[in-house]
Amino acid sequence: MILTVTLNTALDITYRTAALTPHATNRVAEVSERPGGKGINVARVLAALGHESVVTGFVGGRTGDALRELLAAEGPGGRPAHASASDAPVTDALVPIAGTTRRTIAVVDETTGDTTQLNEPGPTVTPAEWAAFLTSYEGLAARADAVALCGSLPPGIHVGAYAELVRLARAAGRPVLLDTSGEPLRRGIAARPDLVKPNADELAQLTGSREPLRATRDARRRGGRSVVASLGAAGLLAATPDGSWRAAPPMAVRGNPTGAGDSAVAGLLSGLVERLPWPERLARAVALSAATVLAPAAGEFDREAYADLLPRVAVTEQSSQPEQEPHAPRQHR
Amino acid sequence: MILTVTLNTALDITYRTAALTPHATNRVAEVSERPGGKGINVARVLAALGHESVVTGFVGGRTGDALRELLAAEGPGGRPAHASASDAPVTDALVPIAGTTRRTIAVVDETTGDTTQLNEPGPTVTPAEWAAFLTSYEGLAARADAVALCGSLPPGIHVGAYAELVRLARAAGRPVLLDTSGEPLRRGIAARPDLVKPNADELAQLTGSREPLRATRDARRRGGRSVVASLGAAGLLAATPDGSWRAAPPMAVRGNPTGAGDSAVAGLLSGLVERLPWPERLARAVALSAATVLAPAAGEFDREAYADLLPRVAVTEQSSQPEQEPHAPRQHR
Repeated sequence: MILTVTLNTALDITYRTAALTPHATNRVAEVSERPGGKGINVARVLAALGHESVVTGFVGGRTGDALRELLAAEGPGGRPAHASASDAPVTDALVPIAGTTRRTIAVVDETTGDTTQLNEPGPTVTPAEWAAFLTSYEGLAARADAVALCGSLPPGIHVGAYAELVRLARAAGRPVLLDTSGEPLRRGIAARPDLVKPNADELAQLTGSREPLRATRDARRRGGRSVVASLGAAGLLAATPDGSWRAAPPMAVRGNPTGAGDSAVAGLLSGLVERLPWPERLARAVALSAATVLAPAAGEFDREAYADLLPRVAVTEQSSQPEQEPHAPRQHR
Repeated sequence: MILTVTLNTALDITYRTAALTPHATNRVAEVSERPGGKGINVARVLAALGHESVVTGFVGGRTGDALRELLAAEGPGGRPAHASASDAPVTDALVPIAGTTRRTIAVVDETTGDTTQLNEPGPTVTPAEWAAFLTSYEGLAARADAVALCGSLPPGIHVGAYAELVRLARAAGRPVLLDTSGEPLRRGIAARPDLVKPNADELAQLTGSREPLRATRDARRRGGRSVVASLGAAGLLAATPDGSWRAAPPMAVRGNPTGAGDSAVAGLLSGLVERLPWPERLARAVALSAATVLAPAAGEFDREAYADLLPRVAVTEQSSQPEQEPHAPRQHR
């Protein structure tokens, strides 16, 4: 079982409009809702890859009730049309709070295909609720094959929260992945997670460097045992104890990048628990990520595109001499 | 008791953002929710004027539950800070349906003060639900001092629905006000409501004329016993069996016009049941409407501004000779 933690879960609402006109009244043509937050997205992809997963974090209020109901409907017995019979279950181990789970609204402009995102702030979590979460988390982490800590912190949670969760997972002897940004990432990485997956901006914010190979190696020195940087259309760059690799999709893909990073996390985590060699983990993460960009619904991945892309991802080992790297970013295929 | 009908109720959500940037991710600084839909807004203002009111229409799903809970919290015992001790109760007589009540989202850009509105489509109402509503409506209308039919029709409701509700109120001997637009207004006015309150656009769409006095008189010929057109900052123009009047605020007011029309309806309805002469009804409607534009929260009215504006509204009787009216709109104070 893989445990994913989403402290700031969300009810993700998508509005389709003919065109979004600011400062006017816009009729929404179509509304859809689904459980959201990075760790929940990761669990959904893990389930599609056949990995049993458990989601935890906080949930509350009417939007929290809606999130849990939709999450239950995604599991066996209530799976949506795009799910496959081989999907593993996603188990709800969310911790109830007095506050109300936030909504995120993605307004998709059907004329241009562009998305305008509105993110509510999360509910404030009390110290007692955080303590209840920690108790539950320790029990869940102890029986997980891997733990993923994903996304932003809701109000009320101390900035060293991820560092605390990393240490608890490590104390339980469980591999732990951290995917967050800013100060929670800076504190969390110092607690020595097995894997961090920053994007180019998060990596630059952490290390001060926009040169990806230099920055990933710096992030390793800060405490990440392995660092996999997501470089958008250029794919992934990994710095690990076993070596460094770049993995790039066979061609640039166009579509909705929402959830592409979460799919990459699911690829890396599944590869980790399956003990795949790094190049295979990276190829899987890149193919899943590109297949997510290509899927019509945000955060889903296109299974056929995934199968087609997987053998075509180019993984190349990088020099082990960071001194010899040029300072300017290379052109990648 | 005054009965207000809102067939397409809504949970009105307001988001405050520093600035709304299309095609980007926007953090919402503050979220507020309240029961919405025109008839519910009218009832809230009636309550503030000391008139007991009953709201009916359709409600369903989680958003419907939230709407009912917020509506109950607005009543005695749970009144918000701006409410006064003299407020009369708003009684919930909404009819439950299987569908889910829509949300409307007003995104207020705090830099410019502009509002971008996103309106979900309403739930589809089944024929059985419409039949259940009609039974409930007949009972409520029979004991109402006046009935107000407000807003758009949700999917599934036939376009002649307001005409049917007008006829039922008239059969019960109750005065009935209609505030809607398009084909439901065209059909509804033919059923001879006591009062219609179109805005300039609705009136032009109904009559084909942009000359307000000509158009209000045309609307009377179409079946409206009295027609009160809201002309935005220029105030109101009334054509009634007792004469025609213009009523204008003492100065142009700037602010958020959301709910100004609903406040005008509440002013007209309360004046009707109090049997005020037309000039007093119109002055009340204009002062309430302007005091709504001036209030910081959308759809509320500023009580002090109302008291200040009421004696200063200019009401002038119009010529009874429409032929002598110029074809171009006049300049009003």
